[in-house]
Order: sequence, then C-alpha cells, then structure tokens
Amino acid sequence: MIYIERKERFSAAHQLFNPHWTIEKNQEVFGKCSNKNFHGHNYTLTVTVKGEINPNTGFVMNLVELKKLIKDHVIEKLDHANLNHDVDFMKGKFTSTEVLAVEIWNILKPLIAQHNCELHKIRLDETENNAVEFWG
Amino acid sequence: MIYIERKERFSAAHQLFNPHWTIEKNQEVFGKCSNKNFHGHNYTLTVTVKGEINPNTGFVMNLVELKKLIKDHVIEKLDHANLNHDVDFMKGKFTSTEVLAVEIWNILKPLIAQHNCELHKIRLDETENNAVEFWG
Amino acid sequence: MIYIERKERFSAAHQLFNPHWTIEKNQEVFGKCSNKNFHGHNYTLTVTVKGEINPNTGFVMNLVELKKLIKDHVIEKLDHANLNHDVDFMKGKFTSTEVLAVEIWNILKPLIAQHNCELHKIRLDETENNAVEFWG
Amino acid sequence: MIYIERKERFSAAHQLFNPHWTIEKNQEVFGKCSNKNFHGHNYTLTVTVKGEINPNTGFVMNLVELKKLIKDHVIEKLDHANLNHDVDFMKGKFTSTEVLAVEIWNILKPLIAQHNCELHKIRLDETENNAVEFWG
Amino acid sequence: MIYIERKERFSAAHQLFNPHWTIEKNQEVFGKCSNKNFHGHNYTLTVTVKGEINPNTGFVMNLVELKKLIKDHVIEKLDHANLNHDVDFMKGKFTSTEVLAVEIWNILKPLIAQHNCELHKIRLDETENNAVEFWG
Amino acid sequence: MIYIERKERFSAAHQLFNPHWTIEKNQEVFGKCSNKNFHGHNYTLTVTVKGEINPNTGFVMNLVELKKLIKDHVIEKLDHANLNHDVDFMKGKFTSTEVLAVEIWNILKPLIAQHNCELHKIRLDETENNAVEFWG
Repeated sequence: MIYIERKERFSAAHQLFNPHWTIEKNQEVFGKCSNKNFHGHNYTLTVTVKGEINPNTGFVMNLVELKKLIKDHVIEKLDHANLNHDVDFMKGKFTSTEVLAVEIWNILKPLIAQHNCELHKIRLDETENNAVEFWG
Repeated sequence: MIYIERKERFSAAHQLFNPHWTIEKNQEVFGKCSNKNFHGHNYTLTVTVKGEINPNTGFVMNLVELKKLIKDHVIEKLDHANLNHDVDFMKGKFTSTEVLAVEIWNILKPLIAQHNCELHKIRLDETENNAVEFWG
Repeated sequence: MIYIERKERFSAAHQLFNPHWTIEKNQEVFGKCSNKNFHGHNYTLTVTVKGEINPNTGFVMNLVELKKLIKDHVIEKLDHANLNHDVDFMKGKFTSTEVLAVEIWNILKPLIAQHNCELHKIRLDETENNAVEFWG
Repeated sequence: MIYIERKERFSAAHQLFNPHWTIEKNQEVFGKCSNKNFHGHNYTLTVTVKGEINPNTGFVMNLVELKKLIKDHVIEKLDHANLNHDVDFMKGKFTSTEVLAVEIWNILKPLIAQHNCELHKIRLDETENNAVEFWG
Repeated sequence: MIYIERKERFSAAHQLFNPHWTIEKNQEVFGKCSNKNFHGHNYTLTVTVKGEINPNTGFVMNLVELKKLIKDHVIEKLDHANLNHDVDFMKGKFTSTEVLAVEIWNILKPLIAQHNCELHKIRLDETENNAVEFWG
Repeated sequence: MIYIERKERFSAAHQLFNPHWTIEKNQEVFGKCSNKNFHGHNYTLTVTVKGEINPNTGFVMNLVELKKLIKDHVIEKLDHANLNHDVDFMKGKFTSTEVLAVEIWNILKPLIAQHNCELHKIRLDETENNAVEFWG
C-alpha cells in the first residue's frame, strides 16, 4: 500500500456561533471568531488516498482525476463562499475547521472508492498555525 | 541607509462591489469576489522601514516598537474583521488589496516618522499567488 | 476522533556536548554542534491533540486555550533562552531535538488531559531540513 | 521510540510512458506528463527514521550520517538526472512518484538498519501540491 | 502608482549547453546542468505590474485577466515542456533562467500595455535557492 | 542588466548588548535579546548580483562560483558560530541583523567585482517575520 496526497486551496468567510447561546456567551467562547459580520481564511485542503500501484500506470490513482474530483465536489462549493450561508453541506452546522474536515471526508470517501482507492486522511489548514486532521 | 522589514498577519472577510453598478455588472467584473455573503483571506502584511543604524543599538528601529505600532494601529482593526463593514478607515472604499495597502500606508507613515525612520514600502499578500506593493 | 494541530515558534541557543567525553571526542561526534560558545536555531513546535468534537462548539479543544497552555508552559521557558543553561526542565540533559521533544511531551501531556483531550504528537523542527516527532 | 526526519532535494527530468500502449493511449492517460522530450521537477525527499534515543548522544541517529547516506546512495544518482535514462535503479520502471518512492525505500532500508535504526517512512514531494508517502 | 504581483508555476526540463564548445568544456562550465538527457525544475514565475488604481474597481488590473494572459501566452508553452526543444521562443537560445526571464518579459510587456498598465518586473525562481529578476 | 539571487542558510547564537550601558538599560532596550547566555536563529542570507548576460553561457555569473564564494567567505564563518565571540569580522560590533548585513556586504562586494559583476543587495532574514535589506 502506498499513499498519495493532493493539495487544493480555497478562500472563504465564516462565523463561529452557537444559536442556543447569548451573544455574550458566544463572544466569551469564540472571541473574535464570533464577529457577526464574518471574517475569513485561505484554507488549504490536503487529501490523502491509499491504494496499490497500478502496474499499467505506476499510479495509485491518476492525480488529474483526483484533482478534478476534489475541485468539482468540494472546492467549487467552498471557494469564495460564506461557510455559514452559501454551502449546502454545512447548513445548520458549526463552521469550525473540525466539522468542515469531517464533512469533506463524507463527500470524498464514496467518490474515491469508485476509483478502487481508499480515502485515508483529510487535512485542513485554516491558518499557517492551525490545522485539523481526520482519518474517519 | 538600511531597510528593515516586519511581517504581521490578519484574517478578514470582504466583498468586492461597486454600488453604482448592477449586480450583473459586479458579477461580470468581480466574479466570485462579489459574493454578497462575503469570502475571506489570511492576509500577510509586510512593512519595510528605512533609516540609519543607531550607533547605540545597532538597530534602524527597535522591532519590538515597530511590531507594537503595526499591531495597535493596523492588525487590531483588521484581524477577524469584515473589511466592508467593521473597519473605520475602509468605510465607503473598495476593499481591494490595492486600496487596503494604500490605507495602511497612510496610517503607518506618520507613526513611523515619529521614530526618526521612514516608511519605505507596504506589501500585502492576499493569497500565496496575489500581492500588492506600495511605495507611496 | 479528530486531531487538531497548533504551531508555535521559539528561538534558542544550545550546544551538544557529552561531559563524560573529551573535547576531541565531542568534536568528532557532534562536529560544529559542539561549539563551546553555542549556536542557535528558530525552532517550530507543532502540538497535535486528539479528541471528539464538542457538540456545543464544533471544537475538539479551544485553540485559544491550547495556544495559551503551550505559550505559558513551554514557549515562555524556551524562547530567547540557552537550552543548556536557562531551562529548568533541560538541566543535565542533552539539548538534542529528540530530548527536547520528549521533555515538551512530558510537560504538555497532563495539562492537555485536563481539557478532556489527549496529547497525540509533538513535532519539533530545528531547521527547515531536520525535525523530530514523538508519539509518547 | 522517537522519529527523526531529514529533507534533501534533487532536480530531475522524466516522462510518464507505458511502452505497451500507443502514443495516443499514453497521451490520453498521462496527458502532458507523457511529453516525449521530457519535463522536470524539483523533488523534495523526506526520510523518517525510527529508533531509541542513544544515552551517550541524545540522538536517535546522527543526522550527519543520515544526510551522508541519503546523499551518497540516493541524491547523487537522482540530482540533475533523467529518471528514465540515467538512473540504474529505475531502468525499465515507471518514473511515477509512487514507484520512485518505493525504490528509494528499498535502497535506504538496509543501510539505515546498519545504524541500529529503522526506516519508517519515505515521503516524496513532486510539486508543492503533489506528494507520495510509503511506509514499506 | 501601485504594483500588483501574480505568481504562476510550471514544470519543465532543460539542458545547459553551448554548441560551439566541446562536451568537456560544457561539462567544465555547466557541470551537472549539461547532462545530455536533461534535468528539470518546478519554476515559479512572478509577474509585477505597475499602474494607477482604477476608481471604478479599486484594481490596478483585474487579476483574472492578468492570470489568463500569463497562462495563455507563457505557462501554456512552458509547462511540462522541454525548454531546449518544445518552446518556440527559446529556439537556439540558452535555457538559463536569465535568458528565460528576458524572453518572458518580451512576451508579456506589449500584452500588459494593452490593459493601460506597465510590466514592471519578471522574477523567475528555478529552485528554492536560485532566482532571477529582470526590470527590462 | 539582469539580477540573480542565491540563498544560503546558517544557524548562529548571539546576544544584543551595549557594553556602555547597565544590565538594566540593556534589558529595557533589547529585552529577551540581551540574555547573557545567548539565544539563536536560523538565518537565511540572500545575495543579489547584477550584471549583463554572458553571450557564451547565458549566465550573469555562474551560480556554482557565487555559491562557493558565499560559502567560503561568509557561511563558513557564521554557521554554528556565536556571532559575539567566534566571528572575526563582528568583533566589537553589535550583532544586530542590520550590522551583520552591512558586514556581509563589505566582504562580498570586492569578491563579486572580480567576476565582472556587481553586488546589488544583501538580504538577511533572522526569523520568518524579521528581515533586513542593504543596497550599499
């Protein structure tokens, strides 16, 4: 088994907010991240796929296909979007990096399985210092 | 003369929009950047200061002071903010990287002059591929 | 389970030296790293924490708290310090990246456990080419 | 057990091509990567070694030795080379990043074992967005 | 006047070779870079454009247009190509980073002038340590 | 005229200290940087050389020669050294990044002139956020 990795990027706005809490409580827990007018990030998404080397190509999975799949099903929906309002699969959810990584996993897992490979890890960098990793 | 440089970072949301144009015209010119719900970036601000080496310190300007000045007067206002709504010095202006760089120049220039140094350049990176430089 | 990661940085001086060896033997094994007047690095510390997503916040652990914990208990002691002389938890130990990573693990493990999370990995980059990872 | 990591770089040319296929089929599967005149990359190789901390040095393995071993047995053969024509251990093989990573593993594994350490992972970055990891 | 900058990347193969010299002389001057089977790099091209801020957009030049222009006229020809054999504007020229930067300048200068802006600088990074800058 | 740039790295220890001041005054001005036991950094030195393209090579200056010159005359003296005690050309001087950049300029300027080129700029990055540039 060998692992391949593809990075894609998107820029999005979001707000961290718990609707069951007061504004003060949100401010206390989420600080500046709860700004009602939103703030934003350049996110870097790293998708790791696990599989065997295909003896006809030397590839685990063709990166052109992996790139297209990530772009069509994830980046297209997230780039230049507001994670709280514009993204169907984030409706009613916290827009933390953790939750976003799990949702991206859920989208990509079955799609990658159709290529006889297995999604191994989703990594999402929110800033140069903060990141999340999810292995399912 | 020698030049010193300090980098600081902030994360903000914005929308590119010309209020004198229709939504269609905005969409045509600004594309995804005109999303009414905003999008966002991790910006990197690089401030270059020019001066002579102080014979008592070996410094052009104490970086602790330069850092404090940038944080108090610029980063504090921009970090986790919405450039269109939350930032006093951007009110009524385009929130393009170009305009933002010029406004940061205008704020920092007189403040740095009080330290017997001269602001030389403002560089603002919006993404890893797009940046602006302003020399006044 | 999901994993979050936080990076912090510190600049420190150190010397690699085995007091039971002659200077020649130290020079032979540690080379330039055994310089008696020290040398130094900008270290990057990456702390990975494992836990479940809190349904009230969307967070594994609040990064503001994780950052504070790392700064107060680790960075504060290491930044602009001499690892051989100034750091209580390194007294009498080799100041290799390996040993430093293990000591940081020992400090952070119980502190992170108090937040219902688990320390998963300590990564310490000494230069852009050399790094250490410790999983306990 | 603790893990140390060393990065080395090389620049090489290659072509992705299956000799049992027509040029059209190669073009269809490998796209621009099948250009008959080759293209090239700056590769970054990351070697991770696992072991116990030596009580006389504080090291898992002396990085000077690890660096020499990687340079002499891998980088020397790959740097400024054509992976399809100049590299003995790649003869008759696909020059994909996957296959190259496996071959580097095979070379380094026994050499590192001679230092009472164990090769843990080979990571090979082909571009800033594409990488492969192999754990044997 | 303000300056905007756009980065694009391409991967290419090349050989440094002076046809008026013997192979030995080429080897002596160009070293490994004269390998007859080529070697390659991931190049980063940075294009800096100078102009005034358009009062209707807040832009010097629309980055979508600048990006398209660089991709269509430069990257399309260089990416996954052999600089010695596949690139019309490099025919019969040295494929050094210096010469390549000058040729890219010559292509982009008139094209950018059509957008009421001025090409200010071409920067070409061949590796993480080597780069060239050309101001015309 | 065209400009080429070469990056080299070194790791060093230093202390900022004015011997004509009390320890308290040093502490007040230099803060943690005045630690008597030193601290350290991974410095990145960028040397920019200006010249015309040699019609026989396509080069401004052979980077192999530029690299050797920087290594022999600068990096060799600074790497794994204590800037206050081990470096001949820094004796009795402030070890600020500013002063160090000027001294490196003074060493490299005449050496590069012997290659029919001109030293254009010295850039010295002390951390990822702090840097100095000197144009003579």
